[in-house]
Amino acid sequence: MKNDILLRAARGEETERVPVWMMRQAGRILPGYRKIRERVKDFQELVKTPELACEATIEPVNLLGVDAAIIFSDILVVPEAMGLDYQMLESRGPIFEKTIQTQKDIDSIRIGSTENWNYVVEALKLTRKELNERVPLIGFAGSPWTIFAYMTEGKGSKTFSVAKRMLYSNPEMAHALLDKITQTTVKYLKDQVNAGAQIVQIFDSWGGILSPESYEEFSLPYIAKICDELSKLVPVIAFPKGAFFSAKAIAKLNCNAISLDWTVDPAEARQLLPGKVLQGNLDPCVLYAEHAVIKAKTHKMLEQFGSKKYIANLGHGVYPDIPMDNVKFFIDTVKQYQSK
Amino acid sequence: MKNDILLRAARGEETERVPVWMMRQAGRILPGYRKIRERVKDFQELVKTPELACEATIEPVNLLGVDAAIIFSDILVVPEAMGLDYQMLESRGPIFEKTIQTQKDIDSIRIGSTENWNYVVEALKLTRKELNERVPLIGFAGSPWTIFAYMTEGKGSKTFSVAKRMLYSNPEMAHALLDKITQTTVKYLKDQVNAGAQIVQIFDSWGGILSPESYEEFSLPYIAKICDELSKLVPVIAFPKGAFFSAKAIAKLNCNAISLDWTVDPAEARQLLPGKVLQGNLDPCVLYAEHAVIKAKTHKMLEQFGSKKYIANLGHGVYPDIPMDNVKFFIDTVKQYQSK
Repeated sequence: MKNDILLRAARGEETERVPVWMMRQAGRILPGYRKIRERVKDFQELVKTPELACEATIEPVNLLGVDAAIIFSDILVVPEAMGLDYQMLESRGPIFEKTIQTQKDIDSIRIGSTENWNYVVEALKLTRKELNERVPLIGFAGSPWTIFAYMTEGKGSKTFSVAKRMLYSNPEMAHALLDKITQTTVKYLKDQVNAGAQIVQIFDSWGGILSPESYEEFSLPYIAKICDELSKLVPVIAFPKGAFFSAKAIAKLNCNAISLDWTVDPAEARQLLPGKVLQGNLDPCVLYAEHAVIKAKTHKMLEQFGSKKYIANLGHGVYPDIPMDNVKFFIDTVKQYQSK
Repeated sequence: MKNDILLRAARGEETERVPVWMMRQAGRILPGYRKIRERVKDFQELVKTPELACEATIEPVNLLGVDAAIIFSDILVVPEAMGLDYQMLESRGPIFEKTIQTQKDIDSIRIGSTENWNYVVEALKLTRKELNERVPLIGFAGSPWTIFAYMTEGKGSKTFSVAKRMLYSNPEMAHALLDKITQTTVKYLKDQVNAGAQIVQIFDSWGGILSPESYEEFSLPYIAKICDELSKLVPVIAFPKGAFFSAKAIAKLNCNAISLDWTVDPAEARQLLPGKVLQGNLDPCVLYAEHAVIKAKTHKMLEQFGSKKYIANLGHGVYPDIPMDNVKFFIDTVKQYQSK
């Protein structure tokens, strides 16, 4: 592979410089993506058309010079594969036609199989071929708790109080659903690896709305199961967004790397997550500022994390209205940085 | 005063039992409140009608037996007092007609005065009279950063990226606006105390979306200024929701008590906030569960915090669809608890 710096850093090897990519790098910040979106009727058509997903995946490699491609897809492939259809509304996010409320509902959904996400498999195969070993290809899935939150709440929410209600009211049922999601997610990620994903990231977007006790009962053990299965195959990055309150428990995950949001202090992360490769964690809003500010904040981050066992990234996905020029400047700043 | 247990606990004195109240206790969970809402055209009419605000404030004292009343009002009284009108839409939250983007915008708004919030002064006076010394009356305001977030963003947001953008792009301007909001808030809270508030709480609802560095530059110093001024007059509770990443800096606030959300571990809070009275922090979603669960989780919380220097509360406002019976059971559980 021409540039395998991300894989080497993720495995904990020393690298000649810090690798860098960005969550949501394939998206509205890029002109090609915006053109692709005009050609499809909705977001899901794009996700389900391998040629277009491939095109969106590769654009940031060409335009931004990032050290990895992440397959253009969505964490909600999993609930759909299990039998829950949803619509993605531009202004409101996902809306599910039905939600999971009872044991009967849980029984009615399936553990997904390759046939349910074959479009992702095809997109990965095509992208690996088109990438032609320029940079590694990242696969991903949501954490079981995050998928559970959408399946029970039926839509995005500030509080996810419907989802959390089930944890307290009917924990056995919650575990039954989480188990079914976890089985599906393991199969899904293994299929991604077989189709060409060389590293995978698990996004726990909504772990941070749980108490530490609930997090360590309902989210972390299921992430751990996925890590145990997938770490045998490829490096695994876990992203427990907003859940650094459980850092000591997160440190025990059988994964290579932990991705951090911008609320986490790098020094504290090094102390509480010993031995892990760390990824992150610039506040995406820094990229709205002028170049001098982006440079200063990026340099500070690089100094704080150090150049070993580190992957530069944002603390969450890049926002769609951030100027591409600033995004490019951030990537270049990391790549040109010489650590002391 | 018949029941001053909250004030004594807030001052750090030993009390015969743990006091308890709930954020948003005067609200949709109560039948009287829902009837009051039918009598007014919108939320703001209720906030601006002292007799109705008084009625809403006192209802939870009568129905739930809480150890304090908190004046029925809104943190957005402050931006309105400074000249920014808003509408409160039932489904979408507040929408401001204009927002602050430039230094000229900052110059165009005023530092608020008594005449701009006289309806709150009148509501406090009336409520003190009607409460007739049964329980203390809590006044409150938003933190300057939280008010800044609404004034610049113009509405609620998941990311408040417009607000945060100003912090990175134009920090001097951000400080100028924060200073003006702080001056207003100090005057506003002093007026609340003069009108009868016996303790005040500062709600930093959106501190948790900042990085520790930004939090300690743009939010905490302004909360500190308010604490310095108000602590001379009454006990002060600061609620840095989601910002426990800056616990060591928060510990230095010149205030009596720190309110905690449910992501914070009680033992860690005792360690990082030495000497402070702590308030909180049950996950509101626990109150959806059956009584046995509510009792177990509440007892666990009480054991973890201990009975000294502690005020029982939720980790955020009670959700409007939580059954009143469960809320009452939570309050009773705290009041009946005998610590070991």
